[in-house]
Amino acid sequence: MQTKSQICPIRWQDNALFLLDQRRLPAEETWLRLDNAPEVAEAIRNMVVRGAPAIGFAAAFGVVLSVLRHGSAAGWRNLVDSDIETLAAARPTAVNLAWSLGRMTKLLAAESDDLARSLLDEAQDQLKTDREQNLRMGQAGAELIEKGSKVMTHCNAGALATAGYGTALAVIRVGHGQKKIEQVFVGETRPWFQGSRLTAWELAKDGIPVTLLADSAAAQAMQKVGINWLIVGADRIAANGDVANKIGTYALAIAARHHGAKVMVVAPHATVDMSISDGSGIPIEERSANEILDAAGIENCLPEITIANPAFDITPAALIDFIVTEKGVFRAPFEGAFSRLKPGKMT
Amino acid sequence: MQTKSQICPIRWQDNALFLLDQRRLPAEETWLRLDNAPEVAEAIRNMVVRGAPAIGFAAAFGVVLSVLRHGSAAGWRNLVDSDIETLAAARPTAVNLAWSLGRMTKLLAAESDDLARSLLDEAQDQLKTDREQNLRMGQAGAELIEKGSKVMTHCNAGALATAGYGTALAVIRVGHGQKKIEQVFVGETRPWFQGSRLTAWELAKDGIPVTLLADSAAAQAMQKVGINWLIVGADRIAANGDVANKIGTYALAIAARHHGAKVMVVAPHATVDMSISDGSGIPIEERSANEILDAAGIENCLPEITIANPAFDITPAALIDFIVTEKGVFRAPFEGAFSRLKPGKMT
Repeated sequence: MQTKSQICPIRWQDNALFLLDQRRLPAEETWLRLDNAPEVAEAIRNMVVRGAPAIGFAAAFGVVLSVLRHGSAAGWRNLVDSDIETLAAARPTAVNLAWSLGRMTKLLAAESDDLARSLLDEAQDQLKTDREQNLRMGQAGAELIEKGSKVMTHCNAGALATAGYGTALAVIRVGHGQKKIEQVFVGETRPWFQGSRLTAWELAKDGIPVTLLADSAAAQAMQKVGINWLIVGADRIAANGDVANKIGTYALAIAARHHGAKVMVVAPHATVDMSISDGSGIPIEERSANEILDAAGIENCLPEITIANPAFDITPAALIDFIVTEKGVFRAPFEGAFSRLKPGKMT
Repeated sequence: MQTKSQICPIRWQDNALFLLDQRRLPAEETWLRLDNAPEVAEAIRNMVVRGAPAIGFAAAFGVVLSVLRHGSAAGWRNLVDSDIETLAAARPTAVNLAWSLGRMTKLLAAESDDLARSLLDEAQDQLKTDREQNLRMGQAGAELIEKGSKVMTHCNAGALATAGYGTALAVIRVGHGQKKIEQVFVGETRPWFQGSRLTAWELAKDGIPVTLLADSAAAQAMQKVGINWLIVGADRIAANGDVANKIGTYALAIAARHHGAKVMVVAPHATVDMSISDGSGIPIEERSANEILDAAGIENCLPEITIANPAFDITPAALIDFIVTEKGVFRAPFEGAFSRLKPGKMT
């Protein structure tokens, strides 16, 4: 079995952090070199790096840069704490960011002899652990897939959002390496085009056959091509198995059920939020109308027109067949299934 | 009852044809003045005017312009025939274009005393008849709708594609005038954005509350808002009731069925093609990959990525509740229902 993924959007080299600039994909593969923590915070804010796990790891390396810069100065700890605050504020809503920085802060308190080295080891370890977990999810998910499968995915639950392999795309990578997956289909993923710009690119880079299409063409592809699996990531999973994911996932899950395709959600167990009993408790972020209008070249919209731009939707557990985590595979029905997981904690 | 529609994209005035330039909507309401047939052909080719019926009517006025220009010249008939050929070639696949020009050619052969006048009368009559038929469909469709309905539509089956009112949007206009329809939802309609650019604009212009959203957000809107009806147009209807319409219609019909919303297709009876037994016989136009890539700002796509860009999809008759034509309303099941229509003929 061969599972490819040369793609990791985060690299440490020559005492600097290098980030693959995702704003420029797929036109250019530009790596930005960042030498201090405020630069890292700015890169997170500006979406050079995206995807909750990847954001956290970038911030962890930002702390290493801060200590390398300030570690020998008088009052260095205040300077580093200030940098950590800046990093934490870059995308305040990402759980992983706070988690990664929390691990770094704990190490700072321990005050080891070679602090920069131990912080760097921790940051590298976060990357490595994420890659291992993703590969484990990939293997667990791929076991469910039959030979000759055609798969649909949505948005980018890929290497570019993580330290490598991705979540849904880890399953697709392993499944393709095992020669079980023949072809992958991905919608462009309006309004941000993560499918067009990121997923199609990273699958093609890894030599996995991929077809890109408008989101609204997915149902017809299911009908004509015979899609066997819809495999997606998750932003949050409620205790009953309802899944919040990128807008459009729900429509795909309905179409998958209609065509007899199975639905697999792939996410680290920390995505399960046991404090939320069902999907109705998950807040849905409403984003700017410009994301809808800009691509159509509309600068001035009649004020009477209402624009709805929800970033996520809720796919009810009843439409999901499998939820794959690094701690095991859950099979529908999901009610009560997650009690063996430690809820809301990152490993 | 009040049914608004100030919008007609075609106007004859001061011996010239005026077309509402749909390429500039919704940013600008620019009317282009056209003084001769080659200019009309170019406007059709360049999508100044779009929608099969509207294209036909514009071409009919093009013939009037040709006769006004050449009618007193020696060998005028050859000059006019040449103009008609140019008009017919502007969008060779639109059935309505050939039909409209056929009516004009028949009049030319009759050689009446005031030829320009009789041609102009015919062109004006085509416009008038279309508006009347659309209003009739609107009234028939609106009778099916309950008070307090929320409606979803797709693409632009509107006034802008016809001589006024539209097809699906005629039902929505009448239903809103009868205070039965509270709110209309329309997806942006990738890849051409007819929803964003045309439908949202023309409904808002007529004072009909409209919400614009990404195509992939439609299913969630059905779930959260409680949509009662999906009302769409059709490009072709097979003898068994399968409907070819803008890509994305099929996904919406599946989602409508899933949420218990009813599906109404509104189209002139000439759209029913009795020579095609079911949807599998309807050819689906595959359009340029650039339509998918351009809006995402992708100039160079990895050559390994396959782009699928079907312009239409087939919604099986089994997902459709009503097909409304100007000759009557058909209720599912549709097998054998269309035999009382004269198939494939334009009225």
